Amino acid sequence: MSAVLTRFDKPAMVAALGDVPWSDAPAQLKLKSRDFYWFSPVLTEKLDACRADLIAMPRDEADVIRIAAACARLRLPLVVRGAGTGNYGQATPLFGGVVMEMTGLNRLRWIESGRIRAQVGIRIAALDALARKEGQELRHYPSTKRLSTIGGFFAGGSGGVGAVTHGGLREPGNLLGARVITVEETPRIIELRGQDTGLVNRTFGSTGIVTEIEMPLDPVRPWQDVLVSFPEINAALRFGRALAEAPGIARKLVSVLGAPTVALMTPLRVLVPAGRDVVPCMVDAAHMEALRDLVAAHGGQIDHSADSLEAETDPARTPVFEFTYGHTTLHALKSDKAITYLQSLYDIDRAEAQWAAVQARFPDQVLAHFEFFVWEGRVALSGVHLIRWSTPGHLQSVMDFHESIGAAIANPHVSTVEDGSRYKLAPGDQLRFKAEVDPRGLLNPGKMRSFVPPAGNQKDVA
Amino acid sequence: MSAVLTRFDKPAMVAALGDVPWSDAPAQLKLKSRDFYWFSPVLTEKLDACRADLIAMPRDEADVIRIAAACARLRLPLVVRGAGTGNYGQATPLFGGVVMEMTGLNRLRWIESGRIRAQVGIRIAALDALARKEGQELRHYPSTKRLSTIGGFFAGGSGGVGAVTHGGLREPGNLLGARVITVEETPRIIELRGQDTGLVNRTFGSTGIVTEIEMPLDPVRPWQDVLVSFPEINAALRFGRALAEAPGIARKLVSVLGAPTVALMTPLRVLVPAGRDVVPCMVDAAHMEALRDLVAAHGGQIDHSADSLEAETDPARTPVFEFTYGHTTLHALKSDKAITYLQSLYDIDRAEAQWAAVQARFPDQVLAHFEFFVWEGRVALSGVHLIRWSTPGHLQSVMDFHESIGAAIANPHVSTVEDGSRYKLAPGDQLRFKAEVDPRGLLNPGKMRSFVPPAGNQKDVA
Repeated sequence: MSAVLTRFDKPAMVAALGDVPWSDAPAQLKLKSRDFYWFSPVLTEKLDACRADLIAMPRDEADVIRIAAACARLRLPLVVRGAGTGNYGQATPLFGGVVMEMTGLNRLRWIESGRIRAQVGIRIAALDALARKEGQELRHYPSTKRLSTIGGFFAGGSGGVGAVTHGGLREPGNLLGARVITVEETPRIIELRGQDTGLVNRTFGSTGIVTEIEMPLDPVRPWQDVLVSFPEINAALRFGRALAEAPGIARKLVSVLGAPTVALMTPLRVLVPAGRDVVPCMVDAAHMEALRDLVAAHGGQIDHSADSLEAETDPARTPVFEFTYGHTTLHALKSDKAITYLQSLYDIDRAEAQWAAVQARFPDQVLAHFEFFVWEGRVALSGVHLIRWSTPGHLQSVMDFHESIGAAIANPHVSTVEDGSRYKLAPGDQLRFKAEVDPRGLLNPGKMRSFVPPAGNQKDVA
Repeated sequence: MSAVLTRFDKPAMVAALGDVPWSDAPAQLKLKSRDFYWFSPVLTEKLDACRADLIAMPRDEADVIRIAAACARLRLPLVVRGAGTGNYGQATPLFGGVVMEMTGLNRLRWIESGRIRAQVGIRIAALDALARKEGQELRHYPSTKRLSTIGGFFAGGSGGVGAVTHGGLREPGNLLGARVITVEETPRIIELRGQDTGLVNRTFGSTGIVTEIEMPLDPVRPWQDVLVSFPEINAALRFGRALAEAPGIARKLVSVLGAPTVALMTPLRVLVPAGRDVVPCMVDAAHMEALRDLVAAHGGQIDHSADSLEAETDPARTPVFEFTYGHTTLHALKSDKAITYLQSLYDIDRAEAQWAAVQARFPDQVLAHFEFFVWEGRVALSGVHLIRWSTPGHLQSVMDFHESIGAAIANPHVSTVEDGSRYKLAPGDQLRFKAEVDPRGLLNPGKMRSFVPPAGNQKDVA
């Protein structure tokens, strides 16, 4: 860690930046070196002291190129940051250096039928609003849509709202293009198309600096926020699966929250009767009649229903998607600071039995939160349970138990690309691409831990 | 059969009709007593001599009610007909009586966001054109879209184009409402909503006279017709499955046609190189780049690509959907009168081996045609193979062989609701509903063969 830090040469860097805005005020360095890693007590302990040496704030791509060239020449770590809403410390510099905040690059490039291209620093909600003006909408967004940048989602995320219909971001057609700047003394610009776009997806900014991305748009739908409740969780899981698999009902989101989880979520708790298990979902308003039939067939009741867009655009309201994905944990943390979470992949055909086993083994310590999404041609079920934090050993025992019953873990208490994946590795094509665009390994060093700089460059980052 | 026929009393019927248009010209009786049952040599032999005694042509619902009341009072069979493009003899009267042609009821009721309501006799292409004016489109249509009425599709069909994304018509949300006239001396009007609409779906007009239906609409997409070809059928099947399961590519149609099938289809043969297996498909034009990646990854090539709407609206052109579903057989029959077909359900995970077994057992006698569709939460694979006709015994051996390798048969060489289904039965709720709306069993008698009129009414149709 120290080897790189000691190299930070402020006068040289400031000279190289020219008129690019920057700051090294301690409050700024602290603020911009953090993201939502504090969801995890493990990451908090590991990352809380990490600090950038300088925050750079490019206004356009020329500024980005200037910063990249300077870092390459001065051999400085470069961490690219959006709004800092990631949960894995994606935006936290492990070895100091420069954090580059991309929110100044927030221009729309163009909208066509079925596609949109914009700079990475635009807020997702703003980008979606631009698409809606043209009768279109984004397929995917995170529960932090109102805060996050599209580039941060792209570089740090894998799916989220929309994945119940369109699968993850890496499914063919979900990412159309990316403009990538290399970290070299003379940076190059690379346009990635189609499946190659996956080379820079969810690599925490370690495989190139993305300045523009191109995403698919779908025709806009009148989404309806709905909260459906059930007297027991298996009914909620069965209804959730039926809705997630209903090809005749347009659906954007299907989640399941156990009653103890709901009890920790203050703004949700007031919308549903106490003690009920809740399915937050978003469906096309034209399909509410079909939804009501499905709810009745599963013994549920609709406790809340609202126009999704109205809820999203009113800062005083909470749209249903803000009760799901990462926001479930966020709300719970506001009620109880000893909460954390865990990501897992249930077997959808054995999910009720798997969850019953978890409940029996960890009563009151693991609280149900599930998300449905499409994966490998089918609807799959992710567990994003809340965990009552006690010790790292207890957390490990929850993970071990999940794996013992066939639920794979994607550990959110780690800060590397590899350890957070179910496969515990970075794809070979991403590693090869990193060697091409970041030969000295300066981009977010330590995050793609299996990367080894090409021979001849290794000493530079030693 | 004769018991009912002898009862036909023309003066009484004509008097009852009042000013409702009707005909008993022999050419009309022949024409309007037929549909596309001649796809099947078995049905041709069985149905070719069947004739209505009178064709009634209602102009509006009041006419329909008058005809229904007259048939109820005079105890006459009543067969409801759209454009007559069904393949099962749906529109053929087994016991004479009245055929009621619904094409005069062709009014749009309304279009809203996500839904459309119209009288049953409107052509599907015309209905879709009305929806498109409002930026919306129908989810499903048959390959006979340019000929068929929406009511005929609804009463005689189960899915078709669109089912690869939205599943069959009976999936929740795919049929929203139906207005049903009962066959009683004083007919009643019943509005069916939601899942109850299934009571009159694919019952060949035997469970009530439908005068209006309400269907879901999706936001319109710029569909692109595409023909992709492969050097061998397993590559075509694998590509077809990958596309059918690609949640990031909007797709309306994915079919597979073996090279020998293509060779029989004159207008298709000129568009692709000889000897290639072909995947006709429709995808959103904005997703062509993702499609090209997928085609390349499977070793295929794109031989034809065109705007779907332009092809559909030009009478001189053949849109890609007219190479699929029933039209595959139709084109082949134009080249070779000894062709018929067979419907089956392959196991998508064993489809290559199943097809290899069929090929080995019936070389040159069974020609590959597959359709992908969504069923029970997954993409499924239907075989709609062409069969070189020789004898009923040979056809039976093809069916038996399919069942022996685990491919269920939905026999299209029968004229009853039950025998054409994989389960060989009519659902109990449809039978109960028929007893309520058609207590004397006058609607398309003989088609729902397991129906027994309620006690007290049985002698009337004996």
